[in-house]
Amino acid sequence: MKNGHIPRATIQRLAVYLQELEYLQRDGLEVISSEPLARACDVHASQIRKDLTYFGEFGVRGVGYSVSGLIDSLTKVLGIDRQWNCGLVGVGNLGKALLSHREFLERRFSVVAIFDSDPFRIGQTVMGLEVMDNNRIKEVVAGLGIRIGIITCPPERAQRAANHLIEAGIKGLLNYSPARISVPGDVVVEYLNFLHHFYSVAFHLSNRNR
Amino acid sequence: MKNGHIPRATIQRLAVYLQELEYLQRDGLEVISSEPLARACDVHASQIRKDLTYFGEFGVRGVGYSVSGLIDSLTKVLGIDRQWNCGLVGVGNLGKALLSHREFLERRFSVVAIFDSDPFRIGQTVMGLEVMDNNRIKEVVAGLGIRIGIITCPPERAQRAANHLIEAGIKGLLNYSPARISVPGDVVVEYLNFLHHFYSVAFHLSNRNR
Repeated sequence: MKNGHIPRATIQRLAVYLQELEYLQRDGLEVISSEPLARACDVHASQIRKDLTYFGEFGVRGVGYSVSGLIDSLTKVLGIDRQWNCGLVGVGNLGKALLSHREFLERRFSVVAIFDSDPFRIGQTVMGLEVMDNNRIKEVVAGLGIRIGIITCPPERAQRAANHLIEAGIKGLLNYSPARISVPGDVVVEYLNFLHHFYSVAFHLSNRNR
Repeated sequence: MKNGHIPRATIQRLAVYLQELEYLQRDGLEVISSEPLARACDVHASQIRKDLTYFGEFGVRGVGYSVSGLIDSLTKVLGIDRQWNCGLVGVGNLGKALLSHREFLERRFSVVAIFDSDPFRIGQTVMGLEVMDNNRIKEVVAGLGIRIGIITCPPERAQRAANHLIEAGIKGLLNYSPARISVPGDVVVEYLNFLHHFYSVAFHLSNRNR
């Protein structure tokens, strides 16, 4: 595996391939060639073949890829063949939406602790978890082996939430708040921007009507 | 403008450039060259220059791009220089989170009607809007000039929600539910997959520890 050099865009595509393959597996498909997989994923077949060679997956000429084999490889490459304990900071609507998102629950990303700074929320139970004070993040992260931090608090509190999580030793953050956060070089942050998807739809509708 | 042929990935990058430029403008920056903009956006400078030539934007050699000029151009290219009326189907936690998302509210994507099929929700007021029965979608979409449909209902109801919206004449959908939906060829669907971002963080953490 040469994944030290896999570009970010490739990772995103691998995630799409995985999702598509899982749909196909549910439909009972056992083998697929790159062309129909490419069509389902909305990319070129040559792109798929190139992406898969990153981690040494080659289809059999005239036969194609084993769906379950490819799912296993992608799961392994993406690092989702194990459980990831997550801590979530900010138990408002967005935090609750994430906690109850079905597809999320079925995966091995497990939110094992939830935090908030609002005294009215602390002590409440949400999806079976007690909302804890942000000042307990450090202690809880260590105790529960939390590796990923999810920031769902309002933007003005995002940096503070990030600081708490990073001080607790967390190296991977998902930031759902519309705020930029500063992190040390060894911490990965994924920004989830709702608006980008809206832009994309607006762009397509605009250009259709010209 | 040659935007009939702008690839999807470019649109996503343009959205990132726009966001970054807006941050820079808030910080008081008036002119920027492609190198620092590229660093801020985590892409190569040559990629930015290439992307911007799609719509005829050229920096001045030795000076750079006008931040406000580039913001105006990107806003226009992306079609977000006008208001887009949106209808949202599914007023659970996720729907509520979207309705109250601050950055979303500041943009010209305006959710003007919200729908649900749950009799307990119909008639309630959420963020100043009355929850209406899904069977009113067709009538309301036409009456309020709704162009974009947002699907935030549970996966098993996503296709039905999409059908309602498409029958009402909507050509652009954002699907937040973890379900695939079938649409006619002239309808654009953006899927918002929470998990892909988690995959990306998991990948980076996995490879760091090998």
